[in-house]
Amino acid sequence: MIRVGIIGSTGYAGIGIVSLFQRHPEAEIMWVTSESYAGKKISEVYPFLRGKTDLVCERLRVARQAKDVDLVFISTPSGVSMKLAPQFLDRGVRVIDVGSDYRFRKVADYKKWYGKKHTKPFWASRAIYGLPELYKRRIASARLVSNPGCYATAGVLALAPLAKEKWIVGDPIIDAKSGVSGAGRSLTLATHFTEADSGVSAYSVTFHRHTGEMEQELSELSGRKIRLAFTPHLIPMTRGILATCYVRIRKPIPLPSIVAMYNAFYERANFVRVQKGEGRPSTKSTFGTNLCDIHIYNDKHTGQLIIVSTLDNLVKGAAGQAIQNMNIMFGMDERTGLELPGFYP
Amino acid sequence: MIRVGIIGSTGYAGIGIVSLFQRHPEAEIMWVTSESYAGKKISEVYPFLRGKTDLVCERLRVARQAKDVDLVFISTPSGVSMKLAPQFLDRGVRVIDVGSDYRFRKVADYKKWYGKKHTKPFWASRAIYGLPELYKRRIASARLVSNPGCYATAGVLALAPLAKEKWIVGDPIIDAKSGVSGAGRSLTLATHFTEADSGVSAYSVTFHRHTGEMEQELSELSGRKIRLAFTPHLIPMTRGILATCYVRIRKPIPLPSIVAMYNAFYERANFVRVQKGEGRPSTKSTFGTNLCDIHIYNDKHTGQLIIVSTLDNLVKGAAGQAIQNMNIMFGMDERTGLELPGFYP
Amino acid sequence: MIRVGIIGSTGYAGIGIVSLFQRHPEAEIMWVTSESYAGKKISEVYPFLRGKTDLVCERLRVARQAKDVDLVFISTPSGVSMKLAPQFLDRGVRVIDVGSDYRFRKVADYKKWYGKKHTKPFWASRAIYGLPELYKRRIASARLVSNPGCYATAGVLALAPLAKEKWIVGDPIIDAKSGVSGAGRSLTLATHFTEADSGVSAYSVTFHRHTGEMEQELSELSGRKIRLAFTPHLIPMTRGILATCYVRIRKPIPLPSIVAMYNAFYERANFVRVQKGEGRPSTKSTFGTNLCDIHIYNDKHTGQLIIVSTLDNLVKGAAGQAIQNMNIMFGMDERTGLELPGFYP
Amino acid sequence: MIRVGIIGSTGYAGIGIVSLFQRHPEAEIMWVTSESYAGKKISEVYPFLRGKTDLVCERLRVARQAKDVDLVFISTPSGVSMKLAPQFLDRGVRVIDVGSDYRFRKVADYKKWYGKKHTKPFWASRAIYGLPELYKRRIASARLVSNPGCYATAGVLALAPLAKEKWIVGDPIIDAKSGVSGAGRSLTLATHFTEADSGVSAYSVTFHRHTGEMEQELSELSGRKIRLAFTPHLIPMTRGILATCYVRIRKPIPLPSIVAMYNAFYERANFVRVQKGEGRPSTKSTFGTNLCDIHIYNDKHTGQLIIVSTLDNLVKGAAGQAIQNMNIMFGMDERTGLELPGFYP
Repeated sequence: MIRVGIIGSTGYAGIGIVSLFQRHPEAEIMWVTSESYAGKKISEVYPFLRGKTDLVCERLRVARQAKDVDLVFISTPSGVSMKLAPQFLDRGVRVIDVGSDYRFRKVADYKKWYGKKHTKPFWASRAIYGLPELYKRRIASARLVSNPGCYATAGVLALAPLAKEKWIVGDPIIDAKSGVSGAGRSLTLATHFTEADSGVSAYSVTFHRHTGEMEQELSELSGRKIRLAFTPHLIPMTRGILATCYVRIRKPIPLPSIVAMYNAFYERANFVRVQKGEGRPSTKSTFGTNLCDIHIYNDKHTGQLIIVSTLDNLVKGAAGQAIQNMNIMFGMDERTGLELPGFYP
Repeated sequence: MIRVGIIGSTGYAGIGIVSLFQRHPEAEIMWVTSESYAGKKISEVYPFLRGKTDLVCERLRVARQAKDVDLVFISTPSGVSMKLAPQFLDRGVRVIDVGSDYRFRKVADYKKWYGKKHTKPFWASRAIYGLPELYKRRIASARLVSNPGCYATAGVLALAPLAKEKWIVGDPIIDAKSGVSGAGRSLTLATHFTEADSGVSAYSVTFHRHTGEMEQELSELSGRKIRLAFTPHLIPMTRGILATCYVRIRKPIPLPSIVAMYNAFYERANFVRVQKGEGRPSTKSTFGTNLCDIHIYNDKHTGQLIIVSTLDNLVKGAAGQAIQNMNIMFGMDERTGLELPGFYP
Repeated sequence: MIRVGIIGSTGYAGIGIVSLFQRHPEAEIMWVTSESYAGKKISEVYPFLRGKTDLVCERLRVARQAKDVDLVFISTPSGVSMKLAPQFLDRGVRVIDVGSDYRFRKVADYKKWYGKKHTKPFWASRAIYGLPELYKRRIASARLVSNPGCYATAGVLALAPLAKEKWIVGDPIIDAKSGVSGAGRSLTLATHFTEADSGVSAYSVTFHRHTGEMEQELSELSGRKIRLAFTPHLIPMTRGILATCYVRIRKPIPLPSIVAMYNAFYERANFVRVQKGEGRPSTKSTFGTNLCDIHIYNDKHTGQLIIVSTLDNLVKGAAGQAIQNMNIMFGMDERTGLELPGFYP
Repeated sequence: MIRVGIIGSTGYAGIGIVSLFQRHPEAEIMWVTSESYAGKKISEVYPFLRGKTDLVCERLRVARQAKDVDLVFISTPSGVSMKLAPQFLDRGVRVIDVGSDYRFRKVADYKKWYGKKHTKPFWASRAIYGLPELYKRRIASARLVSNPGCYATAGVLALAPLAKEKWIVGDPIIDAKSGVSGAGRSLTLATHFTEADSGVSAYSVTFHRHTGEMEQELSELSGRKIRLAFTPHLIPMTRGILATCYVRIRKPIPLPSIVAMYNAFYERANFVRVQKGEGRPSTKSTFGTNLCDIHIYNDKHTGQLIIVSTLDNLVKGAAGQAIQNMNIMFGMDERTGLELPGFYP
C-alpha cells in the first residue's frame, strides 16, 4: 500500500485526487491538509463525499506528516509548493506538484512567465514534467514530478507527434476553450455565475502562463524554438477543454499517414484516443474520464492541419493525471484506479 | 458470469446501462439491440465509448437472442416492453423493464395513468416494483422487475418512511425539478437547447404519469389511499432531480426523532443518505452516483415537514437502479459495479 | 424632465435602472454613486454600456447631491438605505428604496424577519409597498416607496386576487425557482459558477426573509393572518423566477370563473398577463420584460389550485418595477420607458 | 408607414424581426406567413408575444400578399428564397433575404459552397450584400438585399478594415464560437439540450458555408484572393458569437495606429464599437443589441494581430441587421427601432 498525503485538499484539484482515491486499490490517504478548513471533515466541505470518507482536514505539519507517507500531492497556489516540495523531498518523501512551480526546467523561463524569481533552482532542474505520454520512463524514477497545466496537457498532446517528427513550420495557433472549473474555487468576478453564464469570453489574450509550458515541451521535441499564439476562452460549463490547433507542416502529407504517425506515437498511451477528424469533436466524449481525444483534420483549403484535442480539465488536466503519475512512480499499471466509465450525456 | 442482453441500448437509459457494465466484474453483455442504429458499433453512436467496447447494435431477434442470456434489460417506449417482456420470460429469461409498462400492479391503474389497456395483466400482477430500498427480498426472487420512474424514485424514497409509520395526513405535495435528460434522447421542441436553456418551466401540471406510481407505493405503505399533488419542472441542466416534498404529519415530532426513524428505515440501504436538513441540498452531491440524498426539515412556521431528496436521474433514476436490481436478483452485493466516485464540481 | 440620482449603481439592480433609463423619455440621471467604483466611468465597470453613457460613479455626498434631484433610487445592502432614505426625504427628495429596509409597515415584522431593530419607525410606517398592481394610488402620492423583493413580487401577484376575495384557506405553499442573479453581484461560494452550474439546490428552507413580505401583503388583503411555506431554489440560469403556488380555496369554483376573477383584478395592470394554465409556463416568456405571467390550474385530483407565476427578477423583480413606481409617482403612464420587446429564445 | 410582410415568421430570425417591429415607429407588419403554423396566432406559437400582437400566421399567397406591402423579409431554408424573391421583385416589392440564397455575387461561388446550381443568376448578380458597414449606399437603392450570415458578420467586420488597407498577408484564421440559436429552431441531435449542454464542440471543421461569404467580401476589399481557415464551435448558451481572428499584416504597426485606422473605418457605423483589446471581451456586452464589438490585440510574441469580435447572432447576426437594412433602404436613420438597451447580466 502506498501511503500518500494531500496538501491543499479542498481546492478542485485536491478534492479530485481525494475523490479518485476512493477507488484506488493500492494507495491509501494518510492525511489531508487544508488551511481554510482545518479541523473540518472533508465531507462537510464537500457533501458529495458524505459517507465515503472520514478524513479530517489537518493543518500542515511537515515534520510530523512526512513520516507517515511515501508521496505527497501538493495542490497550492503559485509560489507555495516551491517552498513545500523541497521540505518533503529532503525527508525522503516523493512529491507530485499539482501546482505550477516546477513546470519549467529553466528558472529563467519561470521568471519570464510567472514574473518572479524561482528560489529553488536545484529542484526546478530535477523536476520531471509529468506528462506520462512523453516522459513515462523519467517519471518512473522521479522524486519530484510536476503535473502539467490543463491547457498545456491539451495543447502538447495535440502537437507532440508533429513536433517530434520535426514537421511543424512557423508558429502554431492554439485556440482553447475551457470550462470554468479551470479557474479553481477561488471567488472572482469573472467566475461569478451570472458573469460567466450565457456568454463566451476570451481572456489573457497574447499572454497566458501555460504558453510557456507548451513552448518548452514542443520546442524540446522539435529541436528548435517553437512559438505559440495561445488564446484561452471561458465557456459557460463546468468541466472540459477543447483545443483547436492550427499548424503548418513541411510538406503535404496524406491524412491517413498523419493519423498513422499519431497512432504510432501514442501506441502505448492508454489514455489517448487518436482519430481522423470527422463529426463534432466534443468535450463531452472525455467528460469524467482521464482520456484525451485527438481529432486530426487536413485543411486542404488553406494547406494546414487542424488538430482538435479534448479532455476533462479536472481529470486528465489535473487530478487524474496526478494519479497516473503516481501509478508510474510506484511501478503500477498507469490505469490503476483510473478506469472511469465516463458519463453521457 | 451473468449473461445479459440490452434492448434499446442507444437511449439514455440503455447507454447508461452499457456504460456502467464496463466496470461490472460479474456480468457480461452478450448483445445489445437498437432499432435506429442496427448494424452500427455502439461506440460510433456514442463516441465516449470509443476504445471501450466493440459491441455492435443488433436488430431484435427474440428467439435467437434469448438463448444467450440470463437477463434482459428492456428500455423501450411505453407499450413496447409490454409485449417483449413476456416473450423473454416465457423462454426462461429474467427481465428488468426499464420502461413504464409494468410499474402498476393493477391494470386499472395502468389504464388510468397511461390511457390505454394493459394487454398482459398476468405479468403486470407478478412484476415486482424495482425499488430495492422497499422490496429487496421480492426483487431477489423476481422474474420480472419493473424499474421505477426517475421522479417516482425521488418522491417515494423521500416519503416512504413517513408512509410506513402511517404518519402522513392529507395530500402531500411533491414539487420536483429535473434535468432535461429525463425527457430522453428523442427530439422535441421543449428539449431543443435554445428552448430549455436559460429558463425554468413547469409541465404536466395537475397530471403526470409518475404520480400514479408514487401514489401506488405510498398508499400501499400507508395502508390508506394517499393522493399527491405532483408538479415537475424542467431545469436547464442535463442531469439530476431535486424533489421538494411538503407533508403534514399526525402530531408534532421532534426533528431528531424523525431523522432517527428515517435512518432506521434506511439502515440497510447502501445508496440512501439521510440527514437533518441544513445548508443547500443540491443535485450536485449525487451527480454521477447511484445515491439518493434525503434532507429533512421541520417547518415549525406552518407545522409541516419539508423533505428534500436528490438523485441523478440517469443513475439512481434509471441505469444504476437497474443494475442494483440485477445485483439483487442474482444474489450479489447490491453495490457491485456501482461504486461510482461521484464528481464535483 | 424628472431628475434622478441612483445610489448603489453598480449592483445588478442599480445597473438595471441605469440601463433602462437610456430609453426613458421623461427622466434624466443626474448622478450615480458607487462605493466600490467611485471615480470610474460606469461603462468601464459594465462594458455593455460603452458608448451609451458617460456617467462617472461618484461617492455619496447627500447634502450636495440632494439639491440636483427630484428622486433617488437607493440600491444598497440591508441596513444602509434605512439611514440614507430619511436624509433625502428630509431634504424634499422622494425616494424609491430598491433594498429591503422599508418593506414592512410594522417594525416588529422587520425585527422578526431581519433579526435587528428598525431605527426609523416613523418612515417605516409611512413607506408605501411599491407593488403598483396593488397600490397604484398610494404610490402616486408617496414620498417613500419600497420596491418589493423579487420573490415577493412573484408570490404576491400570484395569490393577491384569491386573498382579496378571501377565498384562501389554510397555509399556501410557494415553491419558487430563481436564476442566480437574484443573489446579486457579491461573490459567494454558492454563486460561484462551478458550484451553481449543472445543479439545482434548495436554500433558506423554512426561513427566508421574503416570506415576511408576502405574508404581510396577503394577510392584509385577506383580512386574516396568512402563513406561507416558502421554499426558494437556485436554478442554473442568470435571470427569471418561476413560483409554483399550491393553495386551497373555500369551495370548488370552476376554472373559468377563477380566471375571470383574476382578469378583473388585473384589468388595469399593464404588466400582468393572466391565463388558464396549459402548456409549459416558462420564465422565458417574460425574459427581458417588465411582465408577470400568471397561469392558473385547477388540480381536481387533490382539490386545490396551482398558480404558476413567472417574471424577470431583474426587471419586474427589481429595476423595471422601480421605474414603474417612478412613473406612477410622477404622474406618467406606468409603461413609460418600459416597452421592452422581450427576447426569444 | 412602410408596409412589410414576413415570410417564415416562426423561425428564430423571423420571430426576431416580428419582435423588433413592436418598437419600430415607421413600419408596420401587414402579414406574416408560416407553413408550419398557418392559421395560428403568432402569440400562440411564441407565448412571449401574448398581448403584444394579434398577427395570425398565413399561408403564402404571393399574388395577393404582394399587393399589400412595400418590402418582404424572407426567412426560409436554403433554396426557397431563391424562388420566392423574384416573384416579389417582379411585382415591385423590395426584398430582404434573411436566408443564404443571394449572398454570392457569382453563381459559381454559390455552387461551390452550397453544392447546387443557382437558378436565378440575374438576381444573384444584382443582390446587394447587406452589411451596412460596408455597403450603406448600395443598400439604400437596392431592390434585393441579402442579409449576411451570422458568422460572416462577425468575421467580416473584424477584418474588413485590414482588408481595405491591404495589410493582410497570408490566410487569416477565424476561430468562432456561437450560441446554439445559430442552428435555428429545427430539431437536430446536435442541438438537443442534453447533447449541447455542458460541452463545447467543433463542427464543420475545414468546410463551412459562411467561409465563402467571408472570403468573397474580404477578397473584394483586399483586391486579392483571401483564403480563410474558419472553424465554428458550438457553445452551451443560447445567443452570441465571439470570433477570434488571427491575422498577419505586412509590417509591424503600433497598436494605437491600428485602432485609429479601425475607428476611422467605422466612423459612421452606429453599431460598431472598436477598442484596444484588454480585459475579457465577452458576448455578454452585445447581448440583446444590434452592436458588434471589436477588440484589437497586437501579439508581439508571434508577430500577428488578434482581433476579437462579438455580437448577438440573432440581432446583429440576423433580425437586427435585417431591420437596419430596411431602415437604410427606406431612407431612415439606420438606428430606428434598434435602440435596444442591452441586458446585463
